Order: sequence, then C-alpha cells, then structure tokens
Amino acid sequence: MAVGVCFPRGFVAATASCGMKRDGEDLALVVSAAPAAAAGVFTQNRVAAAPVVVSRGQLASGSARAIVTNSGLANACTGDRGLRDAWTMVETAAAGLDLPCDQVLVASTGVIGRPLPIDRVTAAIERAATGLCKESGAAAAEAIRTTDAFAKTAVAERAIGGGVVRVGGMAKGAGMIRPDMATTLAQITTDARIGPAALKEVLAAAAEGSFNAISVDGCTSTNDCIFLLANGASGVELRRAEDVAEFAGAVAEVAADLARQVVRDGEGTTRVCTYTVSGAADRPAARVAARAVAENVLVKCAMHGGDPNWGRMLAALGAAGVDLDPDRVAVAIGSVEIVRDGTGVDGCERAARAAMDATEVAVDIRIGDGPGEATVIGADLSPAYVSFNAGVTS
Amino acid sequence: MAVGVCFPRGFVAATASCGMKRDGEDLALVVSAAPAAAAGVFTQNRVAAAPVVVSRGQLASGSARAIVTNSGLANACTGDRGLRDAWTMVETAAAGLDLPCDQVLVASTGVIGRPLPIDRVTAAIERAATGLCKESGAAAAEAIRTTDAFAKTAVAERAIGGGVVRVGGMAKGAGMIRPDMATTLAQITTDARIGPAALKEVLAAAAEGSFNAISVDGCTSTNDCIFLLANGASGVELRRAEDVAEFAGAVAEVAADLARQVVRDGEGTTRVCTYTVSGAADRPAARVAARAVAENVLVKCAMHGGDPNWGRMLAALGAAGVDLDPDRVAVAIGSVEIVRDGTGVDGCERAARAAMDATEVAVDIRIGDGPGEATVIGADLSPAYVSFNAGVTS
Repeated sequence: MAVGVCFPRGFVAATASCGMKRDGEDLALVVSAAPAAAAGVFTQNRVAAAPVVVSRGQLASGSARAIVTNSGLANACTGDRGLRDAWTMVETAAAGLDLPCDQVLVASTGVIGRPLPIDRVTAAIERAATGLCKESGAAAAEAIRTTDAFAKTAVAERAIGGGVVRVGGMAKGAGMIRPDMATTLAQITTDARIGPAALKEVLAAAAEGSFNAISVDGCTSTNDCIFLLANGASGVELRRAEDVAEFAGAVAEVAADLARQVVRDGEGTTRVCTYTVSGAADRPAARVAARAVAENVLVKCAMHGGDPNWGRMLAALGAAGVDLDPDRVAVAIGSVEIVRDGTGVDGCERAARAAMDATEVAVDIRIGDGPGEATVIGADLSPAYVSFNAGVTS
Repeated sequence: MAVGVCFPRGFVAATASCGMKRDGEDLALVVSAAPAAAAGVFTQNRVAAAPVVVSRGQLASGSARAIVTNSGLANACTGDRGLRDAWTMVETAAAGLDLPCDQVLVASTGVIGRPLPIDRVTAAIERAATGLCKESGAAAAEAIRTTDAFAKTAVAERAIGGGVVRVGGMAKGAGMIRPDMATTLAQITTDARIGPAALKEVLAAAAEGSFNAISVDGCTSTNDCIFLLANGASGVELRRAEDVAEFAGAVAEVAADLARQVVRDGEGTTRVCTYTVSGAADRPAARVAARAVAENVLVKCAMHGGDPNWGRMLAALGAAGVDLDPDRVAVAIGSVEIVRDGTGVDGCERAARAAMDATEVAVDIRIGDGPGEATVIGADLSPAYVSFNAGVTS
C-alpha cells in the first residue's frame, strides 16, 4: 500500500540492510519520478553531523529528487572522513538512480562518533536503487528507526484547484529530542506543484507548530533535519494564496501528526504532556516559559508520578527568565484549576490527580495579560528513560 | 562540640520541633552574642519565597544577629499569608531573643505552596530561644534538612593579624539544586571583624566558586539563600587587603566544602562529576558550556551508567549557544583523552570506562583557544532520582 512518503503520486521508496542495526533494515531511499522542488530545515546544533552539512549545501539548488538515509550510526563527529562518507552516499545514490549528484539529499541517525562502514552502505544503496516501488513507504519508515518503538508515518489529502493534492511523511525520534528549528529525521513528500521559495515557507511554518514545539528530553541532536519534496505529479499547481494556505494546512497536519508520534514514542515516555502558556509578552516569551516547564526535570518526574505538583511548575516558570507576575499566575490541569493568583486552589488535588490519570495530559498556564501564547508538547521522565540511557551507547 | 555555625566564637544555636517533618526537629535558631555584620545572596527565581522577600529587606541594614529557619515547608507561593507568616517568625524570634526586629533573618525550605502551621512555628521559636548553646551546631544542621541523607557542616580556621579567625557553616540541599547567584540554604558564621560592604564581596566571591558552580538537577529553587554573619568575637579586625584575602579564602573553603556535600547528597546521586571547560571566549561562556554538559539529561544518564559517551557531550556543547569550533574540541575523562580535534580517540574506551568507575569523575573539555575557563560540579541522573521525585510531593 502506498503509505507515508509513497502516498503522494510519483514517489517510490526502497530499503536495504547495511548491518548497522542489530536487526532489520537500516537504509532507505525515497525517490521522485519527476523533478521536484525541495526544502529543508536543519538542527541549530553547532556540532552538526556530516550529512547535515552536505544536505544543507545540496538544498541551495531548491530542487532534489532523492533522499538516502541510514540509521544505526549518525555520521556525526566523524571529521573529514565523515564528510567524505556522506558525499560517497550521495554519489552512489546518484549513480544508481541515474541522477545528477545535486539532486540527492542524505541523512543519518544513530550513534554519534563512529565512522560508517561505507563499503556496506554503498552496496546497500546500489541494491536499494534497483528495488524502488510504491509499496515501500512503511518499510522506509521502519528502516530509519533507531530506538523508536514503532515506525511513524502520516498522510493528508486536500482537494485544491479542481484536483487532489496528497502529502505523506515519515519520522524517527525516541531520544535526544529537543528540536531547534528542526528535529530528528522527518521526510515529507507531496505531489503538489509549488516553487522552492514558497515550499520553504510552508515547511518552516509546519516545523514551527510541530517539530519545534516538542521536547522529549531537552537534548538537541546533531542530526536533526526535515526534508520536504514537491514533485507536481498531482497536476495541481499552487498559484493562488488560498491554495498555498490549504496545502500548507495539509503539510502542517502531517508534520504535527509525526511530531506527536515522536513524543508518544519518546524513550521511556508513559505520558504525553501538552503545556500551553498564555498571557506572555509575546509568542517567543510564551515558548520559552512553556519549554522551561516542559523540560524541568522535577516537573517531568511529577508528571510521571501523576502528581499535580504545581509548586515545581511555578519554580520552573520563575527561573525561565521571562517576565511574569508571580501573584497573577494561574494553572489548570485539564479542566481542573489548581493555581489561582499564584497560589494553590484549596481542595483541588483529588480532581487534579484524576485528570492526570491518562496517557495525555493538558496543562494550561496563564502568566499575565500579554498577547503571547505558545504550546510545547513534552513527555514525562521515567526511571525507564534513565535505565535505558545509562545502559546503552545510543 | 562547637561545630558548624557554632564553631566561631560568640555564636550559639538551638533547635526545636514544629512537627512539619515526619521525624526529627525542623526549626533552627542561630544567634550571635554580639552585633554582627551580615550579608546574603538570594535566588534569582522570579517566584521567590516569602522568607527570601523578607530577609532581602532585612539585610539592607548590613547587620543581623539571628537567623531563624524552618524545614518541611518552604513558605513559597503562599501569597500574603506567607509574607505575614515570615514576619511573624522574625517578630517572635526578636521578642524571644530581646533583639530589634531588623536584626533577625528568616529562611524556610521544604514543600512549596502549603501554608506554615504558624502557631506551632512560633511556639517552637519561643522554646528554641530559651535553649541556645554552643553545642547545637550539629543539631541545627540536622534541623534544616529536608530530603538530605546527611547533615552538612564545614569549618575553617586562619591565623590572621596575630589572632585566629574561625569560619563555620551549614547547608541543606538534595533536590531543586541549580543555584543562580545563591543556592538552597547555607548559613556561614565567623568571628572576624569586618564591615558589611567587604563582607558582601567576600560572600559573593565564595558563592561564585561554590554554590553557583553546582547543579544536581538544573532546577532553581524559590528559596535559595546564603547568609554570612561576622561578629568580631575573635578580636581580629580585617583591615589590610591581605587579611581580607586570607579570610575570604577561609569562607570560600567552607562554602566549597558545603556545596560539594550538597552535590554528593543530591537525590539519587551516585557519582559527583566535575566538568571543567577551558578555551572559551570568556569565563561566562565557559560557565554556560560547562553547565550545558553538566545538566544535559543524556550526559547525566551516561554518567550514571559509567559510559564515556562523548557524543552526547559534544551534542550538548553544540546546543549550548556558545562559540566553539567543533573540529577543535578535546575531551578527557580523568587522565584519559577520549576526544581530540572533535572526534573520538581510537582505543580509549576501556581506559575511559575504568576512569569512570569511581564516585568522583573529572571531565576536562577544551573548546577553543580563548582564556575563559569555568568549573561546574554536577551529579549523575539515576532511576532512583526519578522514582523519588515521581512518588513524593517534595
């Protein structure tokens, strides 16, 4: 079935194994049958992986027809050899697909600091290039997994301009998830026809409300990147502003769906926590405050325990470095108001605990009268997260 | 025996119970027999507890003769009632000790958001005021404990100007430890004679190298404060710059000793990790980088597992927001170099693992050629920390 990145017309995929992961395939190829506009957003980490450096340069052309991705090793902190290896992946894919080199993007995810077994990687790319098909969307999402418990795909469809535009995507996450202008690996395809400049704006807006609004552990990866490829195979050209807006909605929907899956599948996550801060001076301040609460280790522990510990939330807000009047802060968990005018609401604890007895918890925080509002989706912190990350080199 | 805050001449202490802690005493009184210069540093958290607000005002006079402290409840986020209660503690202590109100400082530590049982607190203060003695230094350190596994005291002594100056202190820590210009509760006494302005400088310098250089969990408390009282009972007046420097060294020694004890006793801590970053543009940048590594959740997990996972350290450095050249970064664990020129040193893993098999681990990180250097003392993150903080309202 044509799911994930293969859902839009004109996109195929293939997978292969280089033996970097303990089991399963660890190489994915996503290819557009026709020329495609391309956009990307990348990690802001100063320690950027080799594939990030290479793909950033490749995207200068505004077009790309293929993405080659390996999981298992991140090809980060691998020096000149890492850059050579990333280029070799590009060149091998280009040769196998009979494309110019500048039409291939590359991504890696996995353990930092170990060199790729490049001969096995190139052999896998060559095999994959001969096996492209419409049915490999799910297998591709499977192949880019590292510590993810499940593969992540999402699709959306919109009737635009007399035709139907499809958007499909896949992502991987699990750990080191605190995107900063991008996250983890996500690859989104569409059969809309749209120019690279407009595509870039659509992707930036989608990332802002999805991958840039999540945090599993507050750690920003060296390899984060999202790619968006648009090949026009639907025959629908997005010229009018309302058509672009409709399309942008579909891309945002797919991105948000994937991002939420990344949090739900965060290492050790038992509870997805959505923090909405309102009343801040502006949106960035609201985002800073929401992140400060979402990433506070003590708040995350309380979330794990189902404990409506608002004192930790207020302490986190106070240390966030944004303007707030402590005596005006209000907090609600679900529909249960637990803090009013900066202090606890009597007799709410039982209802608050009941509201937290769920796999998804919404926390609404008002810090003042400003217009700024932002939402950050976070995770609880469990002993399982710590055990997992203390026991493995991942 | 005269330990902790009772070590310097002219200081006495007493303890009592208000029943806020499950067991043990939870109220401490520290009193100088003679007028004393006083200085304090306080949390930068915008959500400051009532006793922080009150004591900040009290210190405007530059002198104080008594500190009244309760543990069990933080008197934070308690609104107007909390401020009234903090004042009541000051007034009750002043009456019991026959001192003007402006000579009494107040501190609280414990659970945020619940009001003090003020009648029991005032009764305990009245009892304590009648039982002051030289032998209660250890009991006072015990009484200010909350989740601390052990009471923390430290002393130092210096021959200055033909006499002997003594410095003694106590602290409590355990959780929500990420001081910002101050930390947790620490109270230091000395029998040196020194003016309040000079005393303030001595305390700021001591805090900078001790409490402001530690982090257990990256969470800044609402109640952090350090007080330093100097009553001149040694007869040694610190007039010459070299005498002040000698004295400052003793205060810094006591502060650093207490701060290190706070990290060692951090909730769930099994390993104290000292991160020194050098080669930064300046000291603040080095501090930011060292904190970014010390507080990175994945680095802390690796530290718990004894895993020399330098990739996580580099990812944390890259996301710290300070200037660095990724290809020049060097990392050593103990004397084992594990990263050179931004990438892993072959064959070092076994030696690095051996260097981590200890309760204290030193990590040296060079990020460039700048003059900036800073040290941050952190802790590992253990499943026990999470279980503890998920299970209790603390």
